[in-house]
Amino acid sequence: MQLHLSTWPEIETYLQTSTGIIFPIGSTEQHGPTGLIGTDAICAEVISKGVAEATGALVGPTINVGMALHHTAFPGSISFKPSTLILLIRDYVSSLAKYGFTKFYFINGHGGNIATLKAAFSETYAYLDDLKIPNADRVQCQIGNWFMCGSVYKLAKELYGDQEGSHATPSEVALTQFAYPEAIKKAPLSEEVSHQHKIYGAADFRRRFPDGRMGSNPDLATPEHGQKFYELAVKELSNSYLEFLSAE
Amino acid sequence: MQLHLSTWPEIETYLQTSTGIIFPIGSTEQHGPTGLIGTDAICAEVISKGVAEATGALVGPTINVGMALHHTAFPGSISFKPSTLILLIRDYVSSLAKYGFTKFYFINGHGGNIATLKAAFSETYAYLDDLKIPNADRVQCQIGNWFMCGSVYKLAKELYGDQEGSHATPSEVALTQFAYPEAIKKAPLSEEVSHQHKIYGAADFRRRFPDGRMGSNPDLATPEHGQKFYELAVKELSNSYLEFLSAE
Amino acid sequence: MQLHLSTWPEIETYLQTSTGIIFPIGSTEQHGPTGLIGTDAICAEVISKGVAEATGALVGPTINVGMALHHTAFPGSISFKPSTLILLIRDYVSSLAKYGFTKFYFINGHGGNIATLKAAFSETYAYLDDLKIPNADRVQCQIGNWFMCGSVYKLAKELYGDQEGSHATPSEVALTQFAYPEAIKKAPLSEEVSHQHKIYGAADFRRRFPDGRMGSNPDLATPEHGQKFYELAVKELSNSYLEFLSAE
Amino acid sequence: MQLHLSTWPEIETYLQTSTGIIFPIGSTEQHGPTGLIGTDAICAEVISKGVAEATGALVGPTINVGMALHHTAFPGSISFKPSTLILLIRDYVSSLAKYGFTKFYFINGHGGNIATLKAAFSETYAYLDDLKIPNADRVQCQIGNWFMCGSVYKLAKELYGDQEGSHATPSEVALTQFAYPEAIKKAPLSEEVSHQHKIYGAADFRRRFPDGRMGSNPDLATPEHGQKFYELAVKELSNSYLEFLSAE
Amino acid sequence: MQLHLSTWPEIETYLQTSTGIIFPIGSTEQHGPTGLIGTDAICAEVISKGVAEATGALVGPTINVGMALHHTAFPGSISFKPSTLILLIRDYVSSLAKYGFTKFYFINGHGGNIATLKAAFSETYAYLDDLKIPNADRVQCQIGNWFMCGSVYKLAKELYGDQEGSHATPSEVALTQFAYPEAIKKAPLSEEVSHQHKIYGAADFRRRFPDGRMGSNPDLATPEHGQKFYELAVKELSNSYLEFLSAE
Amino acid sequence: MQLHLSTWPEIETYLQTSTGIIFPIGSTEQHGPTGLIGTDAICAEVISKGVAEATGALVGPTINVGMALHHTAFPGSISFKPSTLILLIRDYVSSLAKYGFTKFYFINGHGGNIATLKAAFSETYAYLDDLKIPNADRVQCQIGNWFMCGSVYKLAKELYGDQEGSHATPSEVALTQFAYPEAIKKAPLSEEVSHQHKIYGAADFRRRFPDGRMGSNPDLATPEHGQKFYELAVKELSNSYLEFLSAE
Repeated sequence: MQLHLSTWPEIETYLQTSTGIIFPIGSTEQHGPTGLIGTDAICAEVISKGVAEATGALVGPTINVGMALHHTAFPGSISFKPSTLILLIRDYVSSLAKYGFTKFYFINGHGGNIATLKAAFSETYAYLDDLKIPNADRVQCQIGNWFMCGSVYKLAKELYGDQEGSHATPSEVALTQFAYPEAIKKAPLSEEVSHQHKIYGAADFRRRFPDGRMGSNPDLATPEHGQKFYELAVKELSNSYLEFLSAE
Repeated sequence: MQLHLSTWPEIETYLQTSTGIIFPIGSTEQHGPTGLIGTDAICAEVISKGVAEATGALVGPTINVGMALHHTAFPGSISFKPSTLILLIRDYVSSLAKYGFTKFYFINGHGGNIATLKAAFSETYAYLDDLKIPNADRVQCQIGNWFMCGSVYKLAKELYGDQEGSHATPSEVALTQFAYPEAIKKAPLSEEVSHQHKIYGAADFRRRFPDGRMGSNPDLATPEHGQKFYELAVKELSNSYLEFLSAE
Repeated sequence: MQLHLSTWPEIETYLQTSTGIIFPIGSTEQHGPTGLIGTDAICAEVISKGVAEATGALVGPTINVGMALHHTAFPGSISFKPSTLILLIRDYVSSLAKYGFTKFYFINGHGGNIATLKAAFSETYAYLDDLKIPNADRVQCQIGNWFMCGSVYKLAKELYGDQEGSHATPSEVALTQFAYPEAIKKAPLSEEVSHQHKIYGAADFRRRFPDGRMGSNPDLATPEHGQKFYELAVKELSNSYLEFLSAE
Repeated sequence: MQLHLSTWPEIETYLQTSTGIIFPIGSTEQHGPTGLIGTDAICAEVISKGVAEATGALVGPTINVGMALHHTAFPGSISFKPSTLILLIRDYVSSLAKYGFTKFYFINGHGGNIATLKAAFSETYAYLDDLKIPNADRVQCQIGNWFMCGSVYKLAKELYGDQEGSHATPSEVALTQFAYPEAIKKAPLSEEVSHQHKIYGAADFRRRFPDGRMGSNPDLATPEHGQKFYELAVKELSNSYLEFLSAE
Repeated sequence: MQLHLSTWPEIETYLQTSTGIIFPIGSTEQHGPTGLIGTDAICAEVISKGVAEATGALVGPTINVGMALHHTAFPGSISFKPSTLILLIRDYVSSLAKYGFTKFYFINGHGGNIATLKAAFSETYAYLDDLKIPNADRVQCQIGNWFMCGSVYKLAKELYGDQEGSHATPSEVALTQFAYPEAIKKAPLSEEVSHQHKIYGAADFRRRFPDGRMGSNPDLATPEHGQKFYELAVKELSNSYLEFLSAE
Repeated sequence: MQLHLSTWPEIETYLQTSTGIIFPIGSTEQHGPTGLIGTDAICAEVISKGVAEATGALVGPTINVGMALHHTAFPGSISFKPSTLILLIRDYVSSLAKYGFTKFYFINGHGGNIATLKAAFSETYAYLDDLKIPNADRVQCQIGNWFMCGSVYKLAKELYGDQEGSHATPSEVALTQFAYPEAIKKAPLSEEVSHQHKIYGAADFRRRFPDGRMGSNPDLATPEHGQKFYELAVKELSNSYLEFLSAE
């Protein structure tokens, strides 16, 4: 069930049986010479829709831009400052908490979002408490990182070994190929790629990772792999969401 | 050409021939008993893609949530505070201005966004100037409200007369029916509907417009109408975008 | 009745019969070679006092600075960032809403304020709601732009035709001449003046409009014209204020 | 010379001989049963105009609202939060510093503004430095509190002794009577008045000072006294301003 | 009693007999060629602990960084912007006010903190009021500047006369020598030292006061003097704190 | 070498051989019935001083308060909002980056700080870039969590097994006992303790963890254990700091 394809009376009805909602959150950032700039948002979105179908959950509109300041030396990347993203999350959650939503599950496609999301959750709990929203102390936010699912991680290791890397990975590229087969990109990739993990500012990032990849070989990706990743992530995150919903 | 389905080298190439980008901006808000909560985002998104195809423009990811505080007494509506939306626009535009983008065209589906967008543009011009971005004084932002296109307005008048109203209108509902025929909703509508235009806070709005409509009869909408609105809006906004691009 | 010339017990008494207040809001910005930098504030102030006399309304102190970032390439202009002006309005309205004021009428002399004011109103309604102020959902803000009064517009057209322009207009200059006949300025005006309406950043504005005028010929202004504009604006805005006061 | 009654070319000319500007800053706050709510702004404004005449200085528009949160349990008081006033000062000073103004002299009518003004100056110096404004390290801000002038203080002591008090004082009331003889208010004053100086929050203030006065007897004020205070303050602050202008 | 060396049940117990807490607040800023960068924090901390012992008060952790923007042209100085320090104070006070603390006494070692602290207190009272904290209107904040104690001032005058100066003073240096005899620094001091008091931005400060001292001769300091200053300050501020605690 | 016990010329000299600085960051929060409220700050501080001695590093003043909103239902806890802590870090780092510091190493005692610190680092890199600080793209921030050192973790497992828990742990309590043997607290501990790891808002936290412990048995702590943890952490973090310093 998609929030954007629902009416307000339908949401009113939904709230009688569930107070949970899923938000896909991605990023708009470079993913190497062949990865799509929308990779993280695309992955989060398709998996979220899969989880929503599997669990009957409501899924909100995709948060397309995230915290990607370190990618902003590559044309096309857009980033929130962390302080902006904190306010965005506060506004989303507080809007919905007033109607009775209490379980906010963010299916996340971008590692760089995690810290700011967690900071945002803390900021938001305190904000809701300050507002004296009736159920403020029942509101819970949780992140489900599809790329950190055990089954996803295991498959990526099997398929790609060390060439999975940590940015513009074949696994995420595969998933976008599955979702948008018409947008599969090819370009020559340098064989050399840095296997560092250090991330500081944008200029520093580009010096370390000149073509945007972090230790990855996205040439290994196929749409068929992408489908498998999709299925594994949907299954694992569906369980995670249902557990989150039923937990105290 | 979609930013999300492009790679960063493709954007680098694009910038050699154009420094323009289109952003669809909508809202996540109630649209009466039968209108979709995503109406404004859906309309902005499909029209933006149409304009991008017609003009070769780059289109960024949809800004799904807007300034809809007055709709937040209806379950499912999400709103930014204006101060948050200003920061969002600042972050989007300043991220891209650093790469050389100078023409930002926001195809807008929600009247409530206009004032805050204009405030955000002013805030952003000054911010870019403070940052001493090389082309700061060449950055221009413009809003294209599809629902205010002359041809759209005229057709709505012809088809619906006074029953067009000003929120949850048959024209925007029609456009969503064209875009998502599988999500056409039916529900009994009260014959009485307020024809006021006053908008203040959220509780006040719900008192004035109990089911969310403002003077509209969305029952008149059909997917066929939607297609016509789509075509008119794409045509008119394509011209508007090209004129914006070429203007000094 | 002026807030600044009243005592607090008088305000307490006033609130027993009216919960309305008028704020003049102008700007401190260049108005071409001969227009006063305080033009917008002066116009808003004198008209507000006229409306207050005509209606028995309370009038607050003039907001002398507004959103005029695009004028800040001309010496003497002062501007708030939109984000600052939003906080200013929030502080004004929330201070007074706590005492029971509910109807805030801003008589505005500057087009550039409109978008930010509207954004500020939305921000403020939500803020009052968050504060749980007893009458939060009854607070209403409205803008009365004197220069957009039908009767004013009509007279300007009659007197000046196309030479009215859209900034440093003879109508506003005339009104300041009526208010401050001792400060009538003369300077040679170039015959050429741009008739564009595009407004982006400050440096861009000065390129388009080198002497600050937008399509206007302020030489046509006379104090006698000013008096007529004054009388028309006071009459029309007095009606508008009274209607606002009595409306639900 | 008043900024509001000048044109931008006149300011451009003024800057060739002086880079100083005076801003009157007051407050909109209760001043006891008979003192005007605008007292602090009125005093600052009339003295500023006097100083400007005496020294040839440029005087900007009056900042009518200040930091008066502790007065907001009395109807009619309006206050900025300190964080808002800091932004206001930053916007004023940075707007003008870009044109070459370097000496900002704030003639202040309200003790409650002093701390926030000083904080704002520090914030602003750092902001200008961040912006890399050419003359950032030459910008200086100074406060001239008319009520703390030695000559003013001495006269108040002579005329009123202990009945001068510290808020709604006869000296400031006298000055407003001189400025606005048509707005002299009379009301019975309780003989008892607290001589405390403690100021915390708004509710606490009203408990301590039920009618708004702090140890003062404003009944002693006369317009003639007001004229003397005016003359003394203008003389002393004119010297202070000139010294500020010429100091390194 | 130190907050950092207590458990939460001990604080719960403490609150049954006292709702007061002391916070040492200093700065991290240059203190001339021989003064410690931590001088202001060290002084505030040792005196606070002395006052806490003398009065049974609870003392919180030291606020080590303050508002020292004007010292930031000397390596090692760290400063909050005033707007940051305001938020810090708001967070400290509001955290504790929720448990029932009402009397916040800041023992301050840095003149540059005073204005921002006072602004922060006003901001905080209003914030607590907005939050509807039960005892919001009983919360009181007060500053105790050890260096402005009458007895301290008198001794400094006796010992150092004009060579006390106003920054990097022998009195504060003496106190740090008493507290950290192992960190007594020696360096040649120029005989010339400016006796100005003007403080604007950081670059300006360094031009006026090239080695960081303001009119002082810290060579006169001895640890024995420091002990005397310590004892005088502890005694005077202990009385001040107790008076604050018992006052309405 | 301690920043607080140094002079500015000493820092100038230090910068010629190293551009690194260590900041201890802790928290002021409940640590169960017997753990000190200052536990996290104390641990970070003593270890930081140890690392500074071992490596010749400069160590700044302790950041005593952190992000502990979830602990604020226990008297004595103080927390920054994440948005405040982000500004604090920005101010610290940008103050020092202007002098040439480039390597900021935060020795952290509180898990709840990690997310906000990481968000703050991203915000700060972008801020420094906006300021055009010469070495902006060389500034690096890193967190060293003492409690996550491999050797520390291993010893805790050996000594306490499952009774280590995740808050108010015997290992951190032991370290404070080593640092402050005079402040060892005893109190009866319930045998039952929740082994959950879920953390949401403050009220929720107290419901889950009524006495503040998370699965821990701090009774097992001894000062001797504390010394061992201290030595292991100093050794491991010294290596980590030196590696950070020398890394590109």
